[in-house]
Amino acid sequence: MDKELNIRIAKIQKIMADSNIDAALVASNVNLLYTVGQIIAGYVYIPVNGEPVTFVKRPNNLSGAGIHQIRKPEQIPSILEELGIQKPTTIMLEADELTFNEYTRLAACFKNSQVCNCGTKLLQNARTIKTEAELELFRETGRAHTRAYNKIPSLFRYGMTDTELSIEVERAMRLEGMLGQLRIYGQSMELFMGSVLAADNAAAPSAYDFALGGGGTDPSLPVGANGTVLSKGHSVMVDIGGNLHGYLSDMSRTYSIGKLPDYAYTAHQACLDVQKAFQENARPGAVCQDLYQMGKEIIEKAGFADYFMGVGQKAGFIGHGIGLQLNEQPVFAPRMTLQLQQGMVFALEPKIVLPGIGPVGIENSWIVNSDSIEKITLCPDQITDLTL
Amino acid sequence: MDKELNIRIAKIQKIMADSNIDAALVASNVNLLYTVGQIIAGYVYIPVNGEPVTFVKRPNNLSGAGIHQIRKPEQIPSILEELGIQKPTTIMLEADELTFNEYTRLAACFKNSQVCNCGTKLLQNARTIKTEAELELFRETGRAHTRAYNKIPSLFRYGMTDTELSIEVERAMRLEGMLGQLRIYGQSMELFMGSVLAADNAAAPSAYDFALGGGGTDPSLPVGANGTVLSKGHSVMVDIGGNLHGYLSDMSRTYSIGKLPDYAYTAHQACLDVQKAFQENARPGAVCQDLYQMGKEIIEKAGFADYFMGVGQKAGFIGHGIGLQLNEQPVFAPRMTLQLQQGMVFALEPKIVLPGIGPVGIENSWIVNSDSIEKITLCPDQITDLTL
Repeated sequence: MDKELNIRIAKIQKIMADSNIDAALVASNVNLLYTVGQIIAGYVYIPVNGEPVTFVKRPNNLSGAGIHQIRKPEQIPSILEELGIQKPTTIMLEADELTFNEYTRLAACFKNSQVCNCGTKLLQNARTIKTEAELELFRETGRAHTRAYNKIPSLFRYGMTDTELSIEVERAMRLEGMLGQLRIYGQSMELFMGSVLAADNAAAPSAYDFALGGGGTDPSLPVGANGTVLSKGHSVMVDIGGNLHGYLSDMSRTYSIGKLPDYAYTAHQACLDVQKAFQENARPGAVCQDLYQMGKEIIEKAGFADYFMGVGQKAGFIGHGIGLQLNEQPVFAPRMTLQLQQGMVFALEPKIVLPGIGPVGIENSWIVNSDSIEKITLCPDQITDLTL
Repeated sequence: MDKELNIRIAKIQKIMADSNIDAALVASNVNLLYTVGQIIAGYVYIPVNGEPVTFVKRPNNLSGAGIHQIRKPEQIPSILEELGIQKPTTIMLEADELTFNEYTRLAACFKNSQVCNCGTKLLQNARTIKTEAELELFRETGRAHTRAYNKIPSLFRYGMTDTELSIEVERAMRLEGMLGQLRIYGQSMELFMGSVLAADNAAAPSAYDFALGGGGTDPSLPVGANGTVLSKGHSVMVDIGGNLHGYLSDMSRTYSIGKLPDYAYTAHQACLDVQKAFQENARPGAVCQDLYQMGKEIIEKAGFADYFMGVGQKAGFIGHGIGLQLNEQPVFAPRMTLQLQQGMVFALEPKIVLPGIGPVGIENSWIVNSDSIEKITLCPDQITDLTL
């Protein structure tokens, strides 16, 4: 792991150097996990050159080179001084992850430095290109996710609700080793393990910025299944997130209760066509907004534009980066000029909501390789009839 | 619900008036839920006198008196002006919930006002005393929690791990209607549905500030079950959180695999004695630190001080308020001078970790009534042998 962490730290230091930042003080769980290799209550000080220094409040049994037990962040400056580390001219903090009061408290520890609020963004940039070791963890997670979803047809019972199906899929995921918890960027985003959306609940406008929302069963968490009985002629989409080692995999599959009207299969095929176009065109150098536009046009030509990515309230994207958080770079949406690069990982989720029937479409997770994209969520893509 | 929301708003306005605050702009999910009655992506402006104004970004189908659809918070000042609402001299924001960048952005919308970072604290204070309607939701959640835990003996299988038992309890909880997601105060606190701690895993020092931690199965989420096989002579504690309508119930129960050594039952009884002392002494007017001290002394007299609330790394509290978040006021810990008041709700969790055996002890959720405390988690308190 030390070698892996060195690669990550070097990547962060390169980005810091390019932005004229002398130091970072990392304090959010997601970036502590990225830089320490495990969750701690504490901080990591990363100078633009040299070794990082880790400050741990909890657990109280961590030790080793570069690890210091502390009670509070105000101890950090004097320890750095004792270590002979020069005071930084500029230091970056995670202004989109730390609360105002936490940020202000940490900034006060470096009152002779210029504090930059760019920490979240630059660390996100570092995390966007995954290392080889990280890609292996994604592949492992994708395989476990696939094994769990392969059980879904056996979990269906006549008369069950979307919530009940969700509970059985959640259990199947947990039995494959999934941790359950999903880290999501943005303090207002919340989700339990994912969503199972049946029939018209897929069209419910959501308080959250997910591809499809769902009404949920309670106004305190208005997302996902809402207790709809799975009934003949309706579709149901399972979108439960995978997390085996902190790295998330995202996969949605569409199921039917009996046969759907023909145009539902046509709509589903249009989503598969978007995926196929990505397989042919998503390469290092391809521009996110162009790929978004390409996907959108395929759906428009197929005649489903009004139902694409929701009705009434639509999602503004058709895919998103994944990593230690569910919503990373790249994002496939208008005005996204980022180019794909080798080592990026994303979920592509073209979805159509058909009133009176339910959701159709697909979501898979993909690794960007040198001249292709690699699918890591491997269940069959077609609509599966749960009654067969 | 409108009448209920009016009670809550009036309570917030009273606290604002006492603190010379003219207005609040609420933006965190937990406080939006409290003041709007449902999760929205948006904001609530609460003047110290008069009606609140709700600004909604998502969902896009909310309407009604005092509700305004917006795209971004910068639209708020001009809408308030159109409504004839005077610019506040002082406005409070949730500085312990909003990120630095969110807080700064909202503060910039009120640049002629003095912005106070006390929003989180004052809103927490308002939420500490629950309304009658909220107490009913707690009772309902406690009953569902009890029904789920009553199934635990039937979920045990020889050879299963703590993780496998956790998965079955999670499913039982979900089938009783639990939402799964638990809101926790503090950006660095993370937990899936709760923890199941068997044998010496209960002593693992944690990165998180829970009563007992557990090592977890992966360094990306080091809390809870770690894959320990449930075996003869060991104890296992189930502490999976309840959440039926946003209001959390907290209950832990100790189970044994076969018979434990006699001193394990003695230790468990000491924890029950702490609970009994609370039943006799926790009343409106009782001081949190005094109740903590009372509990600690009972454990000391019983001879288990070294194992109380963990070994090696110990929790600093024996109980905590619950509500829309898992960690609210009151807290039973040293230096907590808060007095109990009617309408508070708390979890009391005296726990002892016995090396070589595992955790024993109890956790129940309680409502503070006018001259007593009322238990809302109703499973039997004794150690249950799962092999019988």
